[in-house]
Amino acid sequence: MKALVYQGPGAKALEDRPKPEIRDAGDAVVRITRTTICGTDLHILKGDVATCAPGRILGHEGVGVVEAVGAGVSVFKPGDRVLISCVTACGRCDYCRRGMYSHCTTGGWILGNEIDGTQAEYVRIPHADTSLYPIPEGADEEALVMLSDILPTGFECGVLNGKVAPGGSVAIVGAGPIGLATLLTAQFYSPAQIIMIDLDDNRLEVARRFGATHVVNSADGKAADAVKALTEGRGVDAAIEAVGIPATFLLCQDIVAPGGVIANIGVHGSKVDLHLERLWSHNISITTRLVDTATTPMLLKTVQSKKIDPKLLITHRFALADILDAYDTFGRAAATQALKVIIEA
Amino acid sequence: MKALVYQGPGAKALEDRPKPEIRDAGDAVVRITRTTICGTDLHILKGDVATCAPGRILGHEGVGVVEAVGAGVSVFKPGDRVLISCVTACGRCDYCRRGMYSHCTTGGWILGNEIDGTQAEYVRIPHADTSLYPIPEGADEEALVMLSDILPTGFECGVLNGKVAPGGSVAIVGAGPIGLATLLTAQFYSPAQIIMIDLDDNRLEVARRFGATHVVNSADGKAADAVKALTEGRGVDAAIEAVGIPATFLLCQDIVAPGGVIANIGVHGSKVDLHLERLWSHNISITTRLVDTATTPMLLKTVQSKKIDPKLLITHRFALADILDAYDTFGRAAATQALKVIIEA
Repeated sequence: MKALVYQGPGAKALEDRPKPEIRDAGDAVVRITRTTICGTDLHILKGDVATCAPGRILGHEGVGVVEAVGAGVSVFKPGDRVLISCVTACGRCDYCRRGMYSHCTTGGWILGNEIDGTQAEYVRIPHADTSLYPIPEGADEEALVMLSDILPTGFECGVLNGKVAPGGSVAIVGAGPIGLATLLTAQFYSPAQIIMIDLDDNRLEVARRFGATHVVNSADGKAADAVKALTEGRGVDAAIEAVGIPATFLLCQDIVAPGGVIANIGVHGSKVDLHLERLWSHNISITTRLVDTATTPMLLKTVQSKKIDPKLLITHRFALADILDAYDTFGRAAATQALKVIIEA
Repeated sequence: MKALVYQGPGAKALEDRPKPEIRDAGDAVVRITRTTICGTDLHILKGDVATCAPGRILGHEGVGVVEAVGAGVSVFKPGDRVLISCVTACGRCDYCRRGMYSHCTTGGWILGNEIDGTQAEYVRIPHADTSLYPIPEGADEEALVMLSDILPTGFECGVLNGKVAPGGSVAIVGAGPIGLATLLTAQFYSPAQIIMIDLDDNRLEVARRFGATHVVNSADGKAADAVKALTEGRGVDAAIEAVGIPATFLLCQDIVAPGGVIANIGVHGSKVDLHLERLWSHNISITTRLVDTATTPMLLKTVQSKKIDPKLLITHRFALADILDAYDTFGRAAATQALKVIIEA
């Protein structure tokens, strides 16, 4: 089969690989129909993710059709259309029992990282019963690819951790795909203000179309003042970090109101300064989270009931044979205006 | 009247001052019977607290008897025995309505900071109806001095923010008075482990007596390893910072389990490093809080029902005339083994 393989920092190729087989009783093999590329895949390609060894098939998002199942799989059978979660979960360990699937002792984020992933014609999914979701009759499969990772990540790490609430004020720092997914799902809870902050006017324009009440271009270094001006000097109840660099995390510290939350989504590559000398008495929370995808079934219902349209995030489509072009388009997002790119296998 | 006055960095004196009078309708004047010294008073004396100007009478803790009340005070009358909260709250602003009295727009921590405090024969208390508590008949007044600040601080900023729960694991970094107050109140919730960490073996011995299940002297730089060994390698559900320096906040980052909380109590004078490059995916929360004293009535009931004995924290007693000796004893706690010192006015 064809598969996109990480070959070490800076290198990738579309290779021929053997089709995966059932290894453990809980496994399913899924024929991929659609997958996508995540910002995290770009991190891997830069060599930032130590757990991902050269030779790995990348990708942790996608939908497909069950091809084969192990003897222990009871929920799925060959022919079932399934949504693949980016997080693999046994459903039985202490962490899984607490709904913290991201830290499953035999799973977590392993797909396209510690085991071969979804940017291929087929993928093996361990713990299939608790790592796949059935796709409802009539659902738009392309939209559901957004439920593998990006929508639950924005929702769980940003909106839920940020305690977004009716009448509240929210700032989302970073209007890339993950920030926009946060913007879409934040609107479930009817906040009074959603202020979108980015350096790219095009992305801010998209944000406005997606429902941001205010947009702030932070290029002038005065974003904190702008947010204060919009919030009677107090700052926001939820400052959501959707970039992953020290400067944006610092901005969140400057704009969070007393009693507010800084909800971190960004994947950080270095330590950051935390200004406890002024925040110790500010009654704030800072949260971090690797998505648990505990809310995937709920998000599926919001898509089915048209409370949210994840297809808004999809800007480009490619065949698996052209996945290198897809990476190029996704990697040069400022120029190509790419958000999420769909790969059809 | 006699009063302990801050005279600028490094300087204080017992001075003669005019007795305070009612200024606003919501004021009460309270004759102090007992007060104490807080670590924060030592911070002020070092010049660390910019809001506290030279000439200020220090102190934000105490019990006493109402001497006079303004026309707007309805809960209290002259002769009532009262507990003074370290936080002054109007009860009416947005923050007060949310129970975040620490950020009251006309109050908060102002006593012995922005207005004259309790280390004197008399003190004026603004917003008296919502900043004083009646002392129940037969209550031990000395014990209740611990409810002005230290017990609610340990409980709200440490135990509640740390989500201490039955069966959980807790580490308290710092076995000074505030860490010990946290230790006492953490036991309300029956955690499986309370690991006390400090550099001072005497304080650790006190902690063991107060109910710590394990003590760790961190002088060898291996405290994190010790905590991991006690928690099957995972770390603790709640890492409570009760010192206020970068090294202890760093230790909390090293010992918090996935899904856990770092609950900061310490008053920090400088920024700290936050290791988001490993914590972004650790599903943790970090909380900060200036005590709201929202739990003072509840804590009063725990004292009255003997679930907790705050007098354990009291090691020394002085007359107001000898308050300079009290400061000396409290300031040299490692040598004097002082925890809380009571000043009798």
